Amino acid sequence: MNSLLFIILGATGDLAKRRLIPAIYGLVKEKKLDKFALVGVALSDTTAVEMMAQAKPFIKDFDEAIWKECCEHAYYCQLDFRNESDFERLAAVVNEAEKQSDLTGNRLVYCSTASIFFIDITNHLSQAGIIKKGLCGEDSEPWHRIVYEKPFGLDRASAKKINKALAKVLDECQIFRIDHYLAKEIVATIAMIRFTNRALEPLWSHENIENVQIVLSEKLGMEGRGIYYDNYGALRDVVQNHILQLLALVAMEPPKQLSGNSIRDKKSEVLKNVRPIDGFLGQYEGYRDEPGVRPDSTTETFAAVQLRIDNKRWKGVPFYLRTGKLLNKKEVTIFIRFKHVECLMATSCPRDPNFLIIRISPNEGFSLELNAKKPGVFDEIVPVMMNYCHDCEYMPRTPEAYELLLQEVMKGEQAVSVRSDEIEYAWDVVDEIYKMKLPLHSYKKGTSGPQELKDFEKEHDMRWRE
Amino acid sequence: MNSLLFIILGATGDLAKRRLIPAIYGLVKEKKLDKFALVGVALSDTTAVEMMAQAKPFIKDFDEAIWKECCEHAYYCQLDFRNESDFERLAAVVNEAEKQSDLTGNRLVYCSTASIFFIDITNHLSQAGIIKKGLCGEDSEPWHRIVYEKPFGLDRASAKKINKALAKVLDECQIFRIDHYLAKEIVATIAMIRFTNRALEPLWSHENIENVQIVLSEKLGMEGRGIYYDNYGALRDVVQNHILQLLALVAMEPPKQLSGNSIRDKKSEVLKNVRPIDGFLGQYEGYRDEPGVRPDSTTETFAAVQLRIDNKRWKGVPFYLRTGKLLNKKEVTIFIRFKHVECLMATSCPRDPNFLIIRISPNEGFSLELNAKKPGVFDEIVPVMMNYCHDCEYMPRTPEAYELLLQEVMKGEQAVSVRSDEIEYAWDVVDEIYKMKLPLHSYKKGTSGPQELKDFEKEHDMRWRE
Repeated sequence: MNSLLFIILGATGDLAKRRLIPAIYGLVKEKKLDKFALVGVALSDTTAVEMMAQAKPFIKDFDEAIWKECCEHAYYCQLDFRNESDFERLAAVVNEAEKQSDLTGNRLVYCSTASIFFIDITNHLSQAGIIKKGLCGEDSEPWHRIVYEKPFGLDRASAKKINKALAKVLDECQIFRIDHYLAKEIVATIAMIRFTNRALEPLWSHENIENVQIVLSEKLGMEGRGIYYDNYGALRDVVQNHILQLLALVAMEPPKQLSGNSIRDKKSEVLKNVRPIDGFLGQYEGYRDEPGVRPDSTTETFAAVQLRIDNKRWKGVPFYLRTGKLLNKKEVTIFIRFKHVECLMATSCPRDPNFLIIRISPNEGFSLELNAKKPGVFDEIVPVMMNYCHDCEYMPRTPEAYELLLQEVMKGEQAVSVRSDEIEYAWDVVDEIYKMKLPLHSYKKGTSGPQELKDFEKEHDMRWRE
Repeated sequence: MNSLLFIILGATGDLAKRRLIPAIYGLVKEKKLDKFALVGVALSDTTAVEMMAQAKPFIKDFDEAIWKECCEHAYYCQLDFRNESDFERLAAVVNEAEKQSDLTGNRLVYCSTASIFFIDITNHLSQAGIIKKGLCGEDSEPWHRIVYEKPFGLDRASAKKINKALAKVLDECQIFRIDHYLAKEIVATIAMIRFTNRALEPLWSHENIENVQIVLSEKLGMEGRGIYYDNYGALRDVVQNHILQLLALVAMEPPKQLSGNSIRDKKSEVLKNVRPIDGFLGQYEGYRDEPGVRPDSTTETFAAVQLRIDNKRWKGVPFYLRTGKLLNKKEVTIFIRFKHVECLMATSCPRDPNFLIIRISPNEGFSLELNAKKPGVFDEIVPVMMNYCHDCEYMPRTPEAYELLLQEVMKGEQAVSVRSDEIEYAWDVVDEIYKMKLPLHSYKKGTSGPQELKDFEKEHDMRWRE
């Protein structure tokens, strides 16, 4: 039986109304929750009714009865994260909510706030007795778990400071440093593609792979988040978390089991061995005129970086990362380019190497690009695309990322959480890239990025794959 | 410029009217022949007009003008293959046809006859000067080439005898022991799949492959060919040629080049090392009542055989062949079953190993069966079929097998021809299977074969793949 209390810190924010409350609604609708209550917390002077009303437009497959059930179990508590005594009031609301809904004491706290508040929030929750150290959910005890939304810190030093503070009042098994990419269907699929297929697993190394490209392109720009973004930039906003997590999943050694700490051990090992080699940054024209952005800002809205992984498996294989805002398309894709074959043909050789393409979005799925004979002649080769479209096969309803994520936290499955050592290694990589003082080029909105992409191709004898 | 004379021996037979004459028509229509003539030869007392009329119903995309052009260049010569002096008359017709059509001396003879006539025909053609030894088409000389339709002999001894006789009056470069399966699009594709794909090539051995199954099922029965078939049986009719050629293409070592003797060297090497291990034969109920079949016949209309290949690459890998008449489906397919992966999953393991499936017919193409994550949960695996349908991609017009085959002979490309050593090794395998005195079981028409297929699965710890 699933019985639990959700506490959302930052309950009036975008993530809460667009993702978290709709995800809770989805869990109720799918009968994944037997008993529940939701306590929203934020600085705003608002009400539970108003908080739910703001989320309502983002509910899919709306059902009046289910929505009513959600609203009846919703509470709101106004407080200042920095004010310890405010959390006494929260404790009272929490106790009341648990009593009213006849809950068994499981608590899932979701910190949908800036990471500068993580230490205060965690300490205050602990001091108010809302979260108790050691409640991991073993031996049919109730559990207390806290989810921290990314970015987790601003650099290695700050991440380490947060990790240290959390470790004082929580056990690691209670801490979920969420990267919602880890909850995406296809990201878990990366591990499955690699480790459940005898037709792929033996190929996975420098012996057969020429390079790996991880692309995360966005069409959107600041969308009102200029103040936040200008303090972070592309490297901190998406490379440190999403892209390096994708890299770790693609590059890690086989874990003992495809779960929790086994996977995290192997991801951590890879991230520890990542070395930035070269790259450049970009900033779209007009960025400095965005609301909230400093007029002389040198924050990057684009990054193209070459990395190496210092181990036997990936000896000599470049990993290329590419990401940016206001580009000409929205996509998250991993391109694995195989080496060429020795050419046996008298008259024609394969023009293209094989590719394994893992699409995170859009059109989640994966493709294998092979070569085959051209029909009608005996010695000409044509490329052949073999495609598995995840979305196409499993319509109409694939659960939303955040719905799955909450389920995993409810189960205590820490594969969706980035462990303290992983997060620090990932910050190391980003800190090191910043130290390289890469050049910053400008680019036009709606293009594929700075023109220097072409020069980079020549310099590194590679081709960016679209 | 393509200028040549076709001589079809057995011009009133099924193959000539259904395949060869339509293939020549197709070449004319596609403008692959600049100048040509066709001399039909058989025992029947008929005419060129009648010969062409019999082929007309089998022409696809009929075009009146093209057909008229074909008929204007068609000749017929009645003769007895065993009668040397009859070939003097043929020589006269050949000379006349070449003169009338202003040809340059290239001659393509097609022996669409039983193999008992091959030696006589070849000797008589030589004695009449219709075919001259050494005319391989090098140095812009005209060429003389002879195509021998399968089956080439009845066992190793007879095949060797034919080979020896041919070698006296022809060079190997003039001899085309055709297996029309070698002209099938997809069969050439097997080599391309293997050798132009870095994502497949490293997998191709006992390290990753558990077994290989080659299936050639027919729905048809005797179709008036009882006398012929009862002397041959399934092993001689399809295993010795089609199936062992498919096996050789799948199993051969990488050739230096994907052409002529390079491929034949490697196919020959594999066939030399094939060892039959076990199996059983079948005969459908009612076979002995077929016209032309002996009432106490023990000829097999079904065979299921396990082979091994005695080399490093295929150490310990069973190859299973399965073929039969009057079965429940018509298909020619190669199933390559990969080994299992070590299971990393706590809660679920892949049920199915990976398969690479090469379909010769129907729906020519290939598929890769992989495993992927089940949507909506983090730890369940589902099989995923990635499919490349050759026919689907390249409609409307893929050239017919025999049209391609004639083109390859015109080019002198001997990859479509089975070399003398290959054919003898293949007969060795079949002779050896007969020597094993495998049991003969009966089976019902329209089933998948004898019930003993199940026992065989248990005994060999394998599963026949459908």
